[in-house]
Amino acid sequence: MAEGVGERIKVGIVGGTGYTGVELLRLLSQHRRVQLHAITSRKEDGLPVAEMFPNLRGRVDLCFQTPEHAALDQCDVVFFATPHGVAMEQAEHLLAHNVRIIDLAADFRLQDTAVFERWYKLPHACPEILRDSAYGLVELNRDAIRQARVIGNPGCYPTTVLLGLAPVLGGTQALVDIDHIIADCKSGVSGAGRKAQTGSLFSEASDNFRAYGVAGHRHHPEISEQLQRLAGAPVGLTFVPHLVPMIRGMFSTIYLRILPEAMETDFQALYERRYADEPFVDVMPAGSLPETRSVRASNMLRMAIHRPDDGDQLIVLVAQDNLVKGASGQAIQNMNLMFGLPETMGLEQLAILP
Amino acid sequence: MAEGVGERIKVGIVGGTGYTGVELLRLLSQHRRVQLHAITSRKEDGLPVAEMFPNLRGRVDLCFQTPEHAALDQCDVVFFATPHGVAMEQAEHLLAHNVRIIDLAADFRLQDTAVFERWYKLPHACPEILRDSAYGLVELNRDAIRQARVIGNPGCYPTTVLLGLAPVLGGTQALVDIDHIIADCKSGVSGAGRKAQTGSLFSEASDNFRAYGVAGHRHHPEISEQLQRLAGAPVGLTFVPHLVPMIRGMFSTIYLRILPEAMETDFQALYERRYADEPFVDVMPAGSLPETRSVRASNMLRMAIHRPDDGDQLIVLVAQDNLVKGASGQAIQNMNLMFGLPETMGLEQLAILP
Amino acid sequence: MAEGVGERIKVGIVGGTGYTGVELLRLLSQHRRVQLHAITSRKEDGLPVAEMFPNLRGRVDLCFQTPEHAALDQCDVVFFATPHGVAMEQAEHLLAHNVRIIDLAADFRLQDTAVFERWYKLPHACPEILRDSAYGLVELNRDAIRQARVIGNPGCYPTTVLLGLAPVLGGTQALVDIDHIIADCKSGVSGAGRKAQTGSLFSEASDNFRAYGVAGHRHHPEISEQLQRLAGAPVGLTFVPHLVPMIRGMFSTIYLRILPEAMETDFQALYERRYADEPFVDVMPAGSLPETRSVRASNMLRMAIHRPDDGDQLIVLVAQDNLVKGASGQAIQNMNLMFGLPETMGLEQLAILP
Amino acid sequence: MAEGVGERIKVGIVGGTGYTGVELLRLLSQHRRVQLHAITSRKEDGLPVAEMFPNLRGRVDLCFQTPEHAALDQCDVVFFATPHGVAMEQAEHLLAHNVRIIDLAADFRLQDTAVFERWYKLPHACPEILRDSAYGLVELNRDAIRQARVIGNPGCYPTTVLLGLAPVLGGTQALVDIDHIIADCKSGVSGAGRKAQTGSLFSEASDNFRAYGVAGHRHHPEISEQLQRLAGAPVGLTFVPHLVPMIRGMFSTIYLRILPEAMETDFQALYERRYADEPFVDVMPAGSLPETRSVRASNMLRMAIHRPDDGDQLIVLVAQDNLVKGASGQAIQNMNLMFGLPETMGLEQLAILP
Repeated sequence: MAEGVGERIKVGIVGGTGYTGVELLRLLSQHRRVQLHAITSRKEDGLPVAEMFPNLRGRVDLCFQTPEHAALDQCDVVFFATPHGVAMEQAEHLLAHNVRIIDLAADFRLQDTAVFERWYKLPHACPEILRDSAYGLVELNRDAIRQARVIGNPGCYPTTVLLGLAPVLGGTQALVDIDHIIADCKSGVSGAGRKAQTGSLFSEASDNFRAYGVAGHRHHPEISEQLQRLAGAPVGLTFVPHLVPMIRGMFSTIYLRILPEAMETDFQALYERRYADEPFVDVMPAGSLPETRSVRASNMLRMAIHRPDDGDQLIVLVAQDNLVKGASGQAIQNMNLMFGLPETMGLEQLAILP
Repeated sequence: MAEGVGERIKVGIVGGTGYTGVELLRLLSQHRRVQLHAITSRKEDGLPVAEMFPNLRGRVDLCFQTPEHAALDQCDVVFFATPHGVAMEQAEHLLAHNVRIIDLAADFRLQDTAVFERWYKLPHACPEILRDSAYGLVELNRDAIRQARVIGNPGCYPTTVLLGLAPVLGGTQALVDIDHIIADCKSGVSGAGRKAQTGSLFSEASDNFRAYGVAGHRHHPEISEQLQRLAGAPVGLTFVPHLVPMIRGMFSTIYLRILPEAMETDFQALYERRYADEPFVDVMPAGSLPETRSVRASNMLRMAIHRPDDGDQLIVLVAQDNLVKGASGQAIQNMNLMFGLPETMGLEQLAILP
Repeated sequence: MAEGVGERIKVGIVGGTGYTGVELLRLLSQHRRVQLHAITSRKEDGLPVAEMFPNLRGRVDLCFQTPEHAALDQCDVVFFATPHGVAMEQAEHLLAHNVRIIDLAADFRLQDTAVFERWYKLPHACPEILRDSAYGLVELNRDAIRQARVIGNPGCYPTTVLLGLAPVLGGTQALVDIDHIIADCKSGVSGAGRKAQTGSLFSEASDNFRAYGVAGHRHHPEISEQLQRLAGAPVGLTFVPHLVPMIRGMFSTIYLRILPEAMETDFQALYERRYADEPFVDVMPAGSLPETRSVRASNMLRMAIHRPDDGDQLIVLVAQDNLVKGASGQAIQNMNLMFGLPETMGLEQLAILP
Repeated sequence: MAEGVGERIKVGIVGGTGYTGVELLRLLSQHRRVQLHAITSRKEDGLPVAEMFPNLRGRVDLCFQTPEHAALDQCDVVFFATPHGVAMEQAEHLLAHNVRIIDLAADFRLQDTAVFERWYKLPHACPEILRDSAYGLVELNRDAIRQARVIGNPGCYPTTVLLGLAPVLGGTQALVDIDHIIADCKSGVSGAGRKAQTGSLFSEASDNFRAYGVAGHRHHPEISEQLQRLAGAPVGLTFVPHLVPMIRGMFSTIYLRILPEAMETDFQALYERRYADEPFVDVMPAGSLPETRSVRASNMLRMAIHRPDDGDQLIVLVAQDNLVKGASGQAIQNMNLMFGLPETMGLEQLAILP
C-alpha cells in the first residue's frame, strides 16, 4: 500500500487508447504521488504511448502491453478506460490481489442490474461486487468512496445534472416539482470517444449543431437512479443531449418549476451554502453566465442559478470539462480519496483560456 | 411597378455591411426578377461591395453610396439591414414615393410600442405606419404580407420558436400547458453580426459554449407578442439563448407539457398537416433528428417532434440557417409575396453539406 | 444523346456515399439539363440518398442501388465518385454502350502506368482507354475534353498548383527556375473524405495544424506529369500538403524563383491575360489576398500574384473549394464541355460568406 | 531580491487584458516562486482580473489597477504585455528602482533603431537601454539573458523560424543557400490578440484560410536581424504568414536549399545534437510530423527535419503554442534565467490533447 509519506501509488490503466486514457496519463504523470506502472492495449502491444499521444513525448515512457504482460495485479489501483463490460470481468481477480478499481465505464454505475442489462445488453458479471461498490460522484458520496474498493466513476452528463440538482432535492422541504425536471445538455465531440465513426468526423460535426439520443440515452437511467436516491422518490426527468462543435466541454441547462410553497426560498444562498467547502464546484455570483472554456482542461465545475423575473422557473447552468471533471479528473479525485491523499492533489491546474 | 413578365424589381439596400447585408446581396444577385439598384453605407461610401465581400467579385458591381446619392426613393422596395431605429426614420419618405419596405431590424416587429421602447430604448418614430405593417413570418401571416407596404422581418429566434409552436396553439382544443413553455435555443455566432466586439472574436467564441441573455433578450417580447396572437391568451415562456461555435445555424429545443385531455393527440400528424403545403418548412418523419447543416445556406427550416415514452412531455426540435430563413432569405420570401412572384423564387438553393 | 434543346442528360453516379458524391448530387440536382438516373452503393442498397444527406430532402428522390440494378449502361454519362481502381474496371463495358465516363478518382489521371502502379499499388486495367482519355483540367485542356469519352478529373491539389503555375511555364521565354518550385499547400479536412478514420475525427483535426505526406503524396506525380507537359521538360517540385481545421477549402502558396533574364516581366499582367476569358479563374488585383471562404461552395478559383520588394521571388496564392473546383464542380464543368453545353451551366452559385 | 530559498519574486504585469496577459497570469499564478504583486490597466481599473478571465476564479485575487496605484517600482520584475511603445517609456524609471523588465512587445527586439522606427512608426525612446538589453530567445542567447536587466521577448513567428534555422547557420561550414530561405508560417487566431477587430471575428476567421502580410510583416526584420547574427552575413528570407482557424498554435514550414558541398551532411543528427540538452525543444525522430496540438498550452516546441528523396531540399517543420513558447511561457523562461531559478520552473505542464 502506498499511503506512506513520499511513497507512490502504483497505477495501472486498462485500455488507454481513448481520450479518457490519454487524459488519465496527462494528469497522473504530473501527480507527484503516482507511479505509472502499466497500461494495456491488446491491439497496440509494444507501441510507446507517446507515439500515439505526442503531448506525452519525453514525459511518459510507458509502452502499451497486453493484459497478460502488464501484471496489473501488482498495482495499488487500476483504472478502466475501456468499453462497458470489461471491468466487471476482471474485478474479482484484481480484488483478490488487493487492487482497487476505478471504472470509467458503466459497469459499476447502476445498482439496478436489470436496468444495466436493458441499457447495456449485457448480464452483470459480478452483482456482489457491484453491491459493495461506490458511485464515484465525490461531492455526493465522499464517505462511501473513502471506504470503497471499487468505484463506478460517473458519466459526464450525470455529473453536471446531479451536481446541478443536488441542492434542491432531498432537503426537509420540497422545493421544486420533481415530476417534471428538464435537462437540456450539450457536449463537445470528445464525449463520443476516439473511435473512428462517421458521426464524429470533423466534416460531419464541425459547423453543425444537433440533438441526439432523444428517444433514450444510457445516462438517463444513471441520472434517474441517483436522483431517486437524492430525492427519496422517483423523479421525472426529460433529458435531451446535444452535440456541440467543440472538442472539450459540457454545458447543462436545467429547468425546474419552483413549488408554490417554496417561492420565498433564496436559491442562490442555498447553492452557495451547499458547495461552500467543495474545491471543485464553483457556484458563481447571482447573474453569472458560466462558459465551458472557463473550465477547459481543469477539474473545476462551475454553475450559476437564474430565476427570471423572480418567477416560478428556476434555471441552473452548469459547465464542466467532460474529460476532466466529467471523467478522468473525477477518477483521480476518487483515487485521492481512496488513498487518503488531499483530494485536490494533481488536479489543481488552471483552465486554459483562450 | 415590377410585376410585368420579365420586368425586374428595383431593389435598394440600406446598410449592407453586415452579414444580413451580404446574404441579401448573395441571394438577390441570383434572383432573376431583381435588379440591384443601390446599397448604402455612409462609412464605406465609394467602396465596391465586392471588395468587402469577395464572394461577390465579378458578380455584383455595386459600390456603397451615401444615402443622399442612392436615390432609394426610386426603388420598388428597400431592405433595411441596419441597426434598430433606422428604418422607422425613413419609412414615411419612402412610402410617400410608393417604395415598399422590408426591415430586417426590430422597428416593425412589435405592435406594442411601449414594449418596443422598453427593450430598444427608443420612442417609436411612426406608430401609424407600424400599425399598418405586417409581421413577416410568412407561414403565419401570408395574406397580410401580400397586402402590406411595410414588413417587420422576424427575428431569427422567433422564427424557430413560433414555427415550432404554431401547430399546437390556437386550435379549437387546448393541447399543451401554455403557461410553462420552455425554449432552449442555440445560435451560431453570425447571429451577433459583423460588428467588432470582443465576445464575437474567434478566440473567445471558438471551442466554447455558453448561455447569454438569460435575464432578458429582445427576442423574448417579440415571441411573446406573437404567441399571444396565436394562442389568443398570454403565454408563459422561458427563453434561454446559447452561443454555439459555428458560423451559421440556429437550433431550438422546445419543451411542452401535454394537457391531460390532449394525451391522445397524434402530434406528428398534426405538425405534418399544418405544414404540408409549406415549401420552406420540412416536418421530418417521426424519430428524426434535424441538424443545422442540413439547412446551411438555404431557406429551409426543418423540425421534428418527439414524445419520449409517449408521456406528457412534447419536444419540438427546430433547425434553420439564422442568416437565411432567420433573416435575409425570409426577407426575400416576403418580397416575393409582396410582388406577386412565386414564393420560392431565388430561394431554392440546396443546403451546403458538408 | 442529350444535346437537344431541353433534352436532359441521363446521369449515373457510382459510389455516391462520400463527399464528392453528395456534392455531385447537390450540383447536378440543380442543373437544369441533367436528369439523375441512378446512384449506386452496394452497402447502402435501398437507402434513400436524402436519408444519408439530409440537405437533399425533398429534392432528390433517388435511392442507392446495387450496380446490378442501376442500369448504368443506359446513362449518357457516369461519374465515378469511388475509391481508386473502380472506374477502370467498368470503363470498357460502359464505353461499349456509348456511355461517357468522368472519374473523380485517379484511374485516368496519370498517363504513365508505371507511375500509377507504383503509387496506387494496382496494375492499370485498361491502358488503351487511358491513352484516349483526357486530363480534365478544363483551363489547360479544353479541346481534348470536348472530344473525350473518358475524363480523368484532376486531384484537388493539382488543380491549384497547375493553374497557379501554367502562366509561367511553357511560354516561349523561360521565366522561372523550374528545377526548384515549392508548393506549400493547405487543405480542409473534407479532402480526406467521409471514411471513418481516426485522423479525420473532429477531436483530432480541430484546433490543430499539421503537415502530412511530406515523404510522398499521390498528387505529387500527377502534378509533375502535367507540369512536364506544360514546361516541355521535367520540373523539380517540392510539395508539402498540410491539414487545416476547416471543412472545405484549399489554399496553395507557390514559391518561384524568377530567372535573371526575366526580371522585367510584368507577372500580374501575364496572369491576368492568361485567364482573362476563364469564367472560373479569378486573377485578383495586385496586392490581393485571396481567402478560401471567398470560394466556399462555388466553382470559382481565385489567385493573386506577389513579388516582395520587386525581388526575384514570385509568390502565387491560390484558393479554391476542394469539393467544387477541386472535385465535383470541375467534373460537371467537364460534363458541360463534353455535351456541348455552356461551360458554366449549373455552376454559377455564388460562394457562401460568411 | 528574491533568489533566496523559498523567497518569492514580486511580479508586476503592465497591460494584462490581452491573451499574453491572461497566459502570464495562468502560468505565474502556478509558479511556486512567484508572488503576483500588481497588474495594471487604466481602462479596467478596479475590475477583478478573474471577472475578465473566469479561468482564474478562486485562484487569482488581483484587481486591475491604474499604473499610478500599482507601485510597479517595488517589484522585482515587470512584464509588459502591452502594445508596442509602452515598455520603452517606463524602462528608465523601473531600472532606476532596480526592477527588471521583460517586454513581450517589440520595443527591445530590434537593435537597429532605424529599422524599429520604420516598422513601428515610433522613434525609440531609450536606445542606450536597448543596447544593453538581451534578445530573449533562450536557446540562442542564454548567457546574455542571465546577465540582462531588460529582455526583448521574441515574437512568435521569429521563435519558430530562428530555432528552426539555428542548427544550419553559423557553423564553420556553409550548409544551405542563405540567400533564398523560405518560411511559410501559419498561426492560430489568438496571435492577433484580444482586440475587437473585424478580421478576428469568429464568423470571419472560422472555416477559412488565408495569407496576410505578404507585402511586409513586422516579424520579418526581427527574424532577419537575428538570422544575420547567426549566419554572420545578411540572409535572404521570404516570409509568408497565414491565418489558421484555431485558437492557439503556430506551425512553420521552412524550405532550405542544401549547398552542393554539404550534400553529405546528416541533418537529423545535426539538429538532434544542437538541441540535445534543451528542455523545451524536441527534435522528433526522422520522418516525424509534428502537430500544434502536441504542444497546446505547453512551453514545448517540436520540430522535424525532412529531406525528400535525399535531394537538395531540406524541410524543417516547427510547431509551438504561440501564446506559450511564442510569448508568455518564453517570457517566464527568461525570468527563471534572470533570477537564477531552474529554467523549467512553472513551465512543465503537459500539452492538452485532445
